[in-house]
Amino acid sequence: MDINILQILDILGTIAFAVSGVLAAMGQRLDLFGVLITAFVTAVGGGTLRDLLIGAQPVAWIQDINYTIIILITVAITIPFNRPIGNYKKTLLLCDSLGLGFFTIVGVQKGLLYGLHPAICVVLGTVTACFGGVIRDILLNNVPIIFRKNIYASACIIGAVLYLLSYQFLSLTLAVSEVICISVVVLIRIGSVKYDWHLPNIYKKK
Amino acid sequence: MDINILQILDILGTIAFAVSGVLAAMGQRLDLFGVLITAFVTAVGGGTLRDLLIGAQPVAWIQDINYTIIILITVAITIPFNRPIGNYKKTLLLCDSLGLGFFTIVGVQKGLLYGLHPAICVVLGTVTACFGGVIRDILLNNVPIIFRKNIYASACIIGAVLYLLSYQFLSLTLAVSEVICISVVVLIRIGSVKYDWHLPNIYKKK
Amino acid sequence: MDINILQILDILGTIAFAVSGVLAAMGQRLDLFGVLITAFVTAVGGGTLRDLLIGAQPVAWIQDINYTIIILITVAITIPFNRPIGNYKKTLLLCDSLGLGFFTIVGVQKGLLYGLHPAICVVLGTVTACFGGVIRDILLNNVPIIFRKNIYASACIIGAVLYLLSYQFLSLTLAVSEVICISVVVLIRIGSVKYDWHLPNIYKKK
Repeated sequence: MDINILQILDILGTIAFAVSGVLAAMGQRLDLFGVLITAFVTAVGGGTLRDLLIGAQPVAWIQDINYTIIILITVAITIPFNRPIGNYKKTLLLCDSLGLGFFTIVGVQKGLLYGLHPAICVVLGTVTACFGGVIRDILLNNVPIIFRKNIYASACIIGAVLYLLSYQFLSLTLAVSEVICISVVVLIRIGSVKYDWHLPNIYKKK
Repeated sequence: MDINILQILDILGTIAFAVSGVLAAMGQRLDLFGVLITAFVTAVGGGTLRDLLIGAQPVAWIQDINYTIIILITVAITIPFNRPIGNYKKTLLLCDSLGLGFFTIVGVQKGLLYGLHPAICVVLGTVTACFGGVIRDILLNNVPIIFRKNIYASACIIGAVLYLLSYQFLSLTLAVSEVICISVVVLIRIGSVKYDWHLPNIYKKK
Repeated sequence: MDINILQILDILGTIAFAVSGVLAAMGQRLDLFGVLITAFVTAVGGGTLRDLLIGAQPVAWIQDINYTIIILITVAITIPFNRPIGNYKKTLLLCDSLGLGFFTIVGVQKGLLYGLHPAICVVLGTVTACFGGVIRDILLNNVPIIFRKNIYASACIIGAVLYLLSYQFLSLTLAVSEVICISVVVLIRIGSVKYDWHLPNIYKKK
């Protein structure tokens, strides 16, 4: 695996979402294989949907065995930390938020690589970051995370737009643009949980 | 966007299903982004699955930014009509039925374009028309619409078969075949709700 | 259709899963079309996901009308056997187990054909065998079968690994390797239901 910064972000996102998948699955007391598949789906689900939509097949994890190895190791390390999930809520939120930031950039970049419209690149960044969690929630029969109360996908959209603005239009360096995007996504996501931010109400008050 | 009649049908279907997605999401009081993504998924879900199955990638809405623009405008116009959903049931049913008719033709035509077997073209028409609603229902954790009581997918199948018969075998003009297909789908769908039509019972009476 | 042993396994798996789809759908008293689509999705869902992941499009059943014909005939024959599902539990388990065995081999072989890593071939065998049932369960709003108590996907993984070992590494004949794989999958799956086998517990005892 020829390593560059984008691949590092992809690996970090994979680890972060694999951890979040393990914690979600153990919260529902799935068996060993249930935990493994939940971690796998959470980690690769968003990138898989992105690759299918743009026709980048075989999808990333089918071509590159390293994804599978990384997820197996992450699961093996995470499972023994098997305590009541309450203790881990902060870790889970941090992992998930970092994963969102990393994968947003990976998705936007892959869209740019395929020469797609900037607005579609924003959508692909959001899909890459959010749909692993959505597929996990569908499998576990929970309400998908993007439909729950606090800001989730919106954080990725804002991060992706800022990334495109700073990298493509303001011509900042790649590293600076990435730091901006990840910081914004993580701060918005954590802030929305901590301070109960939500989108403007679209319903009439009763 | 070079406009022809098929693209007009595709646009009309997209608008119709985006409206139906907004109404369904607001019925469950999702937030702004939840409404937007539900509208998007309902409008592009069926066509996306069709394009994946036949390998027409990047899928339509990734290649053509106009889908995204049309859906955004439709959502922006539909949300302010935010009243108890009961008042809109007839509008919703009409939108949904028209969408079914439009997308059935789009799906069948795309199958013909790829040189597929007529029976598979019927399946692709039905997939294009019905699976946006199915994916919407899975995301919202409802029973998928094709499994509910009244005739839904069957209307598309009948419309698609009549379309193929009139266009391919009876050599009627494209316009006439399209009018036949859309009318039949809309009439069967609305009739099935209004007069409580359903498929023959396959279970023994108790 | 040029018949070879892999295609025979594919056909047998398709029939087995179509039967299991009909029985599952009739257990929930779906209407005729609901039963048909459930049978279809159960039979082709795993192979479709596999083909999408590796980019083998149009997917198998879109290219080859015989899948559709086989499923229609199977559904037409199975529906009249409409009795309380309890009586059929053994048939259902046997069908499902045989389907798992057949499709595991089909998936592994398709991975080898595409020159993929052996571990990815094992994943593809498991996906082909298990995800028809998973998609069926998501549509019917049940807990996906791979997350239920008894061993399911693990049987496919073990079967796929033994198949690769015996065929690729020990150079046994194809036929012997196939018999080993199918027997192991079926015995593990039936044994796990009959004797209540499950994976090692990963949770602390209370």
